[in-house]
Amino acid sequence: MPTGLGEFGRIREFFAPLAGPGGLGLIDDAALVDCPAGHRLVVTADAIVAGVHFLPDDPPDLVARKLLRVNLSDIAAMGARPLYYLLTTALPTAWDDDWVARFAHGLAEDQRQFGVALIGGDSVATGGPAVLSLTALGEIESGKEIRRSGALPGDVVWVSGTIGDAFLGLAALRGAYAALVPEQRAYLIDRYRLPQPRVALGPALAGIARAMLDVSDGLLADLGHICDASRVAARVAAPALPLSDAAAASGEERARLASGGDDYELLFTAPPAATERINRLSASLALPMTAIGTIEHGSGVRLVDAEGNEIAVAAAGYRHF
Amino acid sequence: MPTGLGEFGRIREFFAPLAGPGGLGLIDDAALVDCPAGHRLVVTADAIVAGVHFLPDDPPDLVARKLLRVNLSDIAAMGARPLYYLLTTALPTAWDDDWVARFAHGLAEDQRQFGVALIGGDSVATGGPAVLSLTALGEIESGKEIRRSGALPGDVVWVSGTIGDAFLGLAALRGAYAALVPEQRAYLIDRYRLPQPRVALGPALAGIARAMLDVSDGLLADLGHICDASRVAARVAAPALPLSDAAAASGEERARLASGGDDYELLFTAPPAATERINRLSASLALPMTAIGTIEHGSGVRLVDAEGNEIAVAAAGYRHF
Repeated sequence: MPTGLGEFGRIREFFAPLAGPGGLGLIDDAALVDCPAGHRLVVTADAIVAGVHFLPDDPPDLVARKLLRVNLSDIAAMGARPLYYLLTTALPTAWDDDWVARFAHGLAEDQRQFGVALIGGDSVATGGPAVLSLTALGEIESGKEIRRSGALPGDVVWVSGTIGDAFLGLAALRGAYAALVPEQRAYLIDRYRLPQPRVALGPALAGIARAMLDVSDGLLADLGHICDASRVAARVAAPALPLSDAAAASGEERARLASGGDDYELLFTAPPAATERINRLSASLALPMTAIGTIEHGSGVRLVDAEGNEIAVAAAGYRHF
Repeated sequence: MPTGLGEFGRIREFFAPLAGPGGLGLIDDAALVDCPAGHRLVVTADAIVAGVHFLPDDPPDLVARKLLRVNLSDIAAMGARPLYYLLTTALPTAWDDDWVARFAHGLAEDQRQFGVALIGGDSVATGGPAVLSLTALGEIESGKEIRRSGALPGDVVWVSGTIGDAFLGLAALRGAYAALVPEQRAYLIDRYRLPQPRVALGPALAGIARAMLDVSDGLLADLGHICDASRVAARVAAPALPLSDAAAASGEERARLASGGDDYELLFTAPPAATERINRLSASLALPMTAIGTIEHGSGVRLVDAEGNEIAVAAAGYRHF
């Protein structure tokens, strides 16, 4: 027991203050969640590992916020509104109370920002790298959920925000893209460290989007998931891909940016008739939304240039194994 | 990539067949859970670490079943009925597909036994020991939940089954209690490796038990949690503690058995007038239930001998930090 507070002490000091009403102060065996009539709960879980998904010396508050946000992004990708989360931490015994305090501080900040609360979890020790697992719960009106399997030939493919920034940010953290100006490097690193889950956009697309997910494996790989689930093909116009100024300045090929992961933008399909509504939504949320391609009969995803010629794509998303 | 299937392949081969209807085949960003009118969902999460909570060469199917069962035990401890679970695995890259296949086989077996289904999760790789985290969901009629905070002075303290077996089983695995006959050693080891979550008893105690939890830290420590939450004291009669034949034969002191963890029996308090109902329940479930003490004014837990003299207790439950 190298540190002072111990498991119960850490829960009492750092995590109990984050608990919402359903969490019962984190002292009961389980949390209670009410579900309004006519609604369904939406549940997702994601885990991150030190040295794989984050670096052991990353700021703990940013690690916490990224962990929470990637899960909120999954909730948003179903068209749902986030409500609660459970957190299980397996931490090296050498990580002291201060690390946990700063980690909890990051959670508190994002709880305020996104209106969610902690309702349970577990904390254990590990002799290896930290493993952090979070389960997020949200709610959605029954029947309004947006799945991956609803894309139809003729749909337009849309993506929010810009793509490739997080991929570049991770590389920049490792010393790449040294020619970029400091502000652009900082922007890309921030995009890697602190994704912006599209929690307002997701629910607003209910009734508009036919299929949706969030971009985590890479835009092309994730569009492939939609195509597989919907039994359709997709064609993406490389010149249409929305890039930030920093990503454009990086000089990186568009095929590579569309294969990088961790964007946490929403990728969805909608009928052409929805274009005007989507543009209005983009304006009201002050969030760019870009039509990047079309859904077709067949299978697979093709990236094409301005002349319609197919561009070869090397990687198809990050794989853990 | 030392193994063949990869993350998506493992999900498709081993985990997708375990998915319930709400799990959407594990291909969407999140699962959908219906909640019947007048009910609440009950949610809990527990994590286990190789080398801490299980041994790397433990049979994978037993590891899976224990992980699932400790969570089902938490659901039962609220008086709720288990429905679904999400699983996140952080596995060493050296653990091959066969380990995962056997792990999933254990889950399948217990899904049949307990009527639950997988609805989501995540799988990642780690350079350290395996960390497995599971979130279980159950349902309960609104207002019927049994919390830790409801114990009242005058209540009888009850526990299901027998206590201390898992503690002895872990020690036996490490070579202790060599004098026990093989059948008794095997019984104790089985109790450690494969807890029996009291999923029928928990919901049956709604309207009977005033406070409840499952014994994971050790009977005395967990009774202390009830006392803290309920702002009461408890007195436990050591001679009343229910021991298995194997535990009795071990010769271990009752104070030690009441401090060992991992029993996963239900510990609850109820008014004396409920005694007859509890005895009938015990008979109908063919599960021993034993009155082991009383709730009193004050704070803390005292273990007393047949003459009412306090017995000193060294450990107060297992702490991870």
